[in-house]
Amino acid sequence: MAEQEKSTIVLFSGELDKAIAAFIIANGAAAYDHEVTIFFTFWGLNALRKDEQIPAKKGFLEKLFGRMMPRGADRLGLSRMNFAGLGPKMIKHVMKKHNALTLPQLIELAQEQGVKLVACTMTMDLLGLRKEELLDGVEYAGVAAYLGDAADAKVNLFI
Amino acid sequence: MAEQEKSTIVLFSGELDKAIAAFIIANGAAAYDHEVTIFFTFWGLNALRKDEQIPAKKGFLEKLFGRMMPRGADRLGLSRMNFAGLGPKMIKHVMKKHNALTLPQLIELAQEQGVKLVACTMTMDLLGLRKEELLDGVEYAGVAAYLGDAADAKVNLFI
Amino acid sequence: MAEQEKSTIVLFSGELDKAIAAFIIANGAAAYDHEVTIFFTFWGLNALRKDEQIPAKKGFLEKLFGRMMPRGADRLGLSRMNFAGLGPKMIKHVMKKHNALTLPQLIELAQEQGVKLVACTMTMDLLGLRKEELLDGVEYAGVAAYLGDAADAKVNLFI
Repeated sequence: MAEQEKSTIVLFSGELDKAIAAFIIANGAAAYDHEVTIFFTFWGLNALRKDEQIPAKKGFLEKLFGRMMPRGADRLGLSRMNFAGLGPKMIKHVMKKHNALTLPQLIELAQEQGVKLVACTMTMDLLGLRKEELLDGVEYAGVAAYLGDAADAKVNLFI
Repeated sequence: MAEQEKSTIVLFSGELDKAIAAFIIANGAAAYDHEVTIFFTFWGLNALRKDEQIPAKKGFLEKLFGRMMPRGADRLGLSRMNFAGLGPKMIKHVMKKHNALTLPQLIELAQEQGVKLVACTMTMDLLGLRKEELLDGVEYAGVAAYLGDAADAKVNLFI
Repeated sequence: MAEQEKSTIVLFSGELDKAIAAFIIANGAAAYDHEVTIFFTFWGLNALRKDEQIPAKKGFLEKLFGRMMPRGADRLGLSRMNFAGLGPKMIKHVMKKHNALTLPQLIELAQEQGVKLVACTMTMDLLGLRKEELLDGVEYAGVAAYLGDAADAKVNLFI
């Protein structure tokens, strides 16, 4: 029996369009039975935040980061043509018109398909994000775990 | 006989400097006889637009997107130091001085060398781009085709 | 004996956060005994600049580029939340608090671990950067050398 092919994506960027691209590729690969890992680091972690405010003990800068960064997949901006939030509204409108999955739906589908969502613990520390603020089912690891997965994978992308 | 090596690039970004980087890598790999595919998605599609206006039946938002996005490789901005269009002029000036190929010339060379240029049909739909607006010789496919190419390739980049 | 695994990173972006991510991955891979190459091109070259001003004979546009681009790893901005330089200060503050290595320290560690730092000569020409302006120990090459390394590597990222 052939070994299962592996793919990894580092999602570094915190923009809606890049997160959508990452999840479309990940879901596509999972549909072809690849073992897929998305490793969320830096601003990419924001896609994993729950959309409600979670009480957590934080220092001043951590609170500030937490407030300035978008809370969850539904609040990300665009990498281009963001226009103070109008761009994401337009993109979401056309996606709905074309019956495309929203980012929260893409994330749910990824979890259903067994895509491994891994939050980078080192950048969580830096940005002051706590596990209770991130979606359920997320795994936690560092760069060593990412490299272990990537070394076995055929497709490795940094988004 | 050794099998031909494969490389794929996803060009997601719509900036001149990133598109130039993508095509320099693609042309280099093609010169070494790799089978190269560039998969254009989201803003990257703008590099494939013809520079004249093509009449096409479009809805309001599609027209708006079409007007706000740069029409073709010669009108892209820079990811840094764009300065309202002055940056690209400066870069083009120094590229000319160094006899470097312009982006339209790099695209032409890629097509001559058999680099496969593939437009992502899903994001074309979202952004309201029509086949008649894109360069001749471009192929059309979805994420499944990309994943098929990427799984066989040695070098896979997301730009 | 197993052959040494190879990894390559193209560092195209000139932002602090992306450069940190690149060096954390590179240092991690080197710690696992991978042979790692970082290929610096376009704005990524700024991470390799010495922080003092180096006298060099340059044309007008080259001087202008040289002045507008950040001089060295300690002066890079952030890809998000830069806030005219306040963002990088905040990130550096929290990194210090968590005893994380600074970017200049990450670069030094990479050099100690034998990570190959390669500056792209073609974009150095375009941006008017001279060898004497870049860190000691940096190698110089073009896209062909990068492709040679990438074709042998398991993990290839474009950052």
